[in-house]
Amino acid sequence: MHDDLRDHCFSASERAAVYRAIRERRDVRAQFRPDPLPDAVLARLLAAAHHAPSVGFMQPWDFILITDAALRQRVKEGFERENARAAERFGGDRGALYRRLKLEGIQESPLNLCITCDRKRAGPHVLGRNTMLDTDLFSACLAVQNLWLAARAEGVGVGWVSILDADELADLLGLPDGVVPLAYLCLGYVDEFLDEPELARAGWRQRLPLNELVHRDQWGTRLDDDPLAELLKDAL
Amino acid sequence: MHDDLRDHCFSASERAAVYRAIRERRDVRAQFRPDPLPDAVLARLLAAAHHAPSVGFMQPWDFILITDAALRQRVKEGFERENARAAERFGGDRGALYRRLKLEGIQESPLNLCITCDRKRAGPHVLGRNTMLDTDLFSACLAVQNLWLAARAEGVGVGWVSILDADELADLLGLPDGVVPLAYLCLGYVDEFLDEPELARAGWRQRLPLNELVHRDQWGTRLDDDPLAELLKDAL
Repeated sequence: MHDDLRDHCFSASERAAVYRAIRERRDVRAQFRPDPLPDAVLARLLAAAHHAPSVGFMQPWDFILITDAALRQRVKEGFERENARAAERFGGDRGALYRRLKLEGIQESPLNLCITCDRKRAGPHVLGRNTMLDTDLFSACLAVQNLWLAARAEGVGVGWVSILDADELADLLGLPDGVVPLAYLCLGYVDEFLDEPELARAGWRQRLPLNELVHRDQWGTRLDDDPLAELLKDAL
Repeated sequence: MHDDLRDHCFSASERAAVYRAIRERRDVRAQFRPDPLPDAVLARLLAAAHHAPSVGFMQPWDFILITDAALRQRVKEGFERENARAAERFGGDRGALYRRLKLEGIQESPLNLCITCDRKRAGPHVLGRNTMLDTDLFSACLAVQNLWLAARAEGVGVGWVSILDADELADLLGLPDGVVPLAYLCLGYVDEFLDEPELARAGWRQRLPLNELVHRDQWGTRLDDDPLAELLKDAL
């Protein structure tokens, strides 16, 4: 590699910090502490989200900070109803395990945050959003991940609660027509960040071997003896 | 804040590195250099993507590395057809500006990468994916952003090409039924990372004021005199 290719590369310690955030980030449900997030920390997390890429620089996101106890209680009730329905899909030992898992921290976390997507933002024609129309939703997802990684660096846990009815949530938050709730997040300091994903630790599902997920030019061409395959095994 | 809340917080320099990646990441189209990415760098980027959160730990993503010139030529032709159609949506000065913008680096970048989403992975019932069925696609987006930030730390530029026909792309890559192309990315070292998004510099669209995108408990409750509003102005 030419030296000048390294010009824009972060220092080794900076790179290590970015990879640490990626490696140690967790989907937090059970470890929240009630202590409030300082405004300065919250401002940095929201700014991190706002610096995500977006299709046509659309920036379709809004951020609804939810602290009201009665409102959270109603969100929790919606979760409980949908989660009971979901549990019925899993029978036997799997169903028993499902029912033991804690899947949200709506009331224990000091802050809930709904990241929404305004599907009409920037008008009817958005640069880059003409064949893949859900790229506005995808952009809002990128904002979620920016916030998630920044939060890990701040020592703040984040959990995404997906077992909610989107229409009901939109009503509870007073969202106007065309604005959809993309991600309902719980945020707060934590007692610990687990050293592996909670679903792996609970025996629900394990991390897949990365080398089996990489193809060359065509689906199904496995790496096999490709030197890259070996490097993938312990890259992070 | 109690001292023990800081236990899981990164050091000041580590936090600065994470925020630097978030702040300096760019959607790269025009600045690619042809030099290949070393396998060790590519392995770290793929591992970063693979460490994204996913609904029910589904890990629905696959990674197709695309270097074949003929294949890239066909992808480029599909882009040109769809981009010509898209340009027709913008009239007058806006249309003229649209046609001047470079929106992809398919052939100039040394590597194209398609991140796909296997909508059937982990079986018919996925934990957490019962009310919001697109959370598998959203998970794959989180993987994209992990890779994008890791790439910035490595000095590697990434551009997301969204002006492609998904069905045509699936055919070109031989994707099986149920696997969709989520993101078509161009990767490579760059001459420079611009200091602001290319669409802002070109005068297409500017960054929105963050304080106008934050609400409390209900849509439309502006922060106004809330101390958070001031902090949002220069948080990053």
